[in-house]
Amino acid sequence: MNNVIAVDIGGTHFRVGLFDEEGRRLLVNEHATLRDGGRDWMLQQVRDHCRGLVEKSDYPVTACGVSFGGPVDFERQRVTSLHAPGWEDFPLGEWTRETLGLPCRLDNDANAGALGEFRYGAGRGLRSLVYVTISTGIGGGLISDGRLIRGRDSMAGEIGHLPVSENGVLCSCGARGCLETFCSGTAIAQRGQEWATRRPESVARMIEMSGGVIENITAQAVVQAAAEGNMAAEGILREVGRWLGRALLVVIRLLNPDKIVLGGGVAQAGKLLIDPVHEALDELKSPTIRYSTEIVLAELGTFSPLYGAAALALEAAPSQA
Amino acid sequence: MNNVIAVDIGGTHFRVGLFDEEGRRLLVNEHATLRDGGRDWMLQQVRDHCRGLVEKSDYPVTACGVSFGGPVDFERQRVTSLHAPGWEDFPLGEWTRETLGLPCRLDNDANAGALGEFRYGAGRGLRSLVYVTISTGIGGGLISDGRLIRGRDSMAGEIGHLPVSENGVLCSCGARGCLETFCSGTAIAQRGQEWATRRPESVARMIEMSGGVIENITAQAVVQAAAEGNMAAEGILREVGRWLGRALLVVIRLLNPDKIVLGGGVAQAGKLLIDPVHEALDELKSPTIRYSTEIVLAELGTFSPLYGAAALALEAAPSQA
Repeated sequence: MNNVIAVDIGGTHFRVGLFDEEGRRLLVNEHATLRDGGRDWMLQQVRDHCRGLVEKSDYPVTACGVSFGGPVDFERQRVTSLHAPGWEDFPLGEWTRETLGLPCRLDNDANAGALGEFRYGAGRGLRSLVYVTISTGIGGGLISDGRLIRGRDSMAGEIGHLPVSENGVLCSCGARGCLETFCSGTAIAQRGQEWATRRPESVARMIEMSGGVIENITAQAVVQAAAEGNMAAEGILREVGRWLGRALLVVIRLLNPDKIVLGGGVAQAGKLLIDPVHEALDELKSPTIRYSTEIVLAELGTFSPLYGAAALALEAAPSQA
Repeated sequence: MNNVIAVDIGGTHFRVGLFDEEGRRLLVNEHATLRDGGRDWMLQQVRDHCRGLVEKSDYPVTACGVSFGGPVDFERQRVTSLHAPGWEDFPLGEWTRETLGLPCRLDNDANAGALGEFRYGAGRGLRSLVYVTISTGIGGGLISDGRLIRGRDSMAGEIGHLPVSENGVLCSCGARGCLETFCSGTAIAQRGQEWATRRPESVARMIEMSGGVIENITAQAVVQAAAEGNMAAEGILREVGRWLGRALLVVIRLLNPDKIVLGGGVAQAGKLLIDPVHEALDELKSPTIRYSTEIVLAELGTFSPLYGAAALALEAAPSQA
């Protein structure tokens, strides 16, 4: 029996876990990401927590898998993020291997999430799956015939940047009309803040949850208010679900996977999000192009990428090579 | 040394060919499809021509591959076309096997085209490819890691039915705003006929090529007129290329393949089509999401599906099993 280390580095939090060979989670630490900590702070955290878990492991630790919340060049095992200072072109795979003295495999969080759900979550026993993570941004991971489709430039699965409207606002990527400008956590928070500015009486609870400060309204507050029955918040999520439905129709028409799995923080809205997705798909459906692709929520909640990192570690482990 | 038989059944013509084990084409017959002939006429033609080629072959014929110009359930090796009378749920794979006494593999023409280009055309040596066939309708075939992505319901690659506009006309599939309503041969012919009705003086050559009968204007006449420098025809193709570019951006964002290969009759327009595709992609590009996916024309021209049928036959042949 051997164990592996899994690391999930995100913009708001990071997790480090110990898993066994069957992908069972034995120990997990979760911590807030220090916004201004930068790369070196994060690397120190990762090193210290990983070493701590290696020491606590009852069995030899044979490999490490890393999920990074931003673009990764898989071939070169490097982070290619342009947004997070200090990370651009950083050889995180090599750093982890040398720092821990373990074989390592690195991928972005959407691919890791897809792998996690495929092996240990909603995708167990399937042949294909598309994982869509909706949190601050939107990402996608594609699995066909049991294998990740990473694409020529490690850029496959950019679901957040599918053009869904001819009249959209400018996206962080520099293009217009991307799904992300309609459906990301950032976009949902903005909608909530707009309501709070224009019609504070309609979203009193949302404002209250944010300590009375409109700029502090998050996507989570919108989801929470909707769950409590606030109509404005429900309306925001309905609109989000409908745009998401349009994008998922594109995914279905192109890939026709066994399942589409929705993960990330915003997907925790559950029915409030998935019902309008189905409404949009019903309206856009063709009577002649039938498909049986199911749309479901991630079984591993927001832990899909961490489980995926464990799966990556098991792929990198010598016994599996 | 063995040979195989390849069959390509289309709505306007059909082809039957003899190929060697390296996918080299030895003999090919091409014939017009009798519009009112129906299924039984076609099956008789296929049987007779295949038997003819088997007799002419210098080496044993060990298998047959079939490309069908319409939806195919690959798992069940059946045609599932709802549009072509007599073909619905027809077990064409089994029929071919029993009629010719040879192992057989059947797929739709877009998948066959993708396979043909991947093995013997523009995709040689690549790992992934998306083939888009633009003729009467529009279809797509996806190859990742050397394998066709067929999808849960054999419905992957339905590029012709990607929704590209919120305000489109009704598509043959029953939905609205599909790429096919903007870019198919049918749509191009309609645009040509509209010009001929409203501004006959601008498209005199197009009308002349169609024997003076506006209803006889085909996509081919539009392409030919554009090639001769007719501005209206060029304008039609520019518009077509731009819509196609939007859809290809979606393909790139999702799959980021090594190459996108454009085939089918309309793709024979070459530069007249591919230049506006690149224009549209340039306008929609994101400065941060970079990709190196190339867009090229099919190397095998309109023969990609026939070569793909040969590749399917080689997969089905006992020596390869």
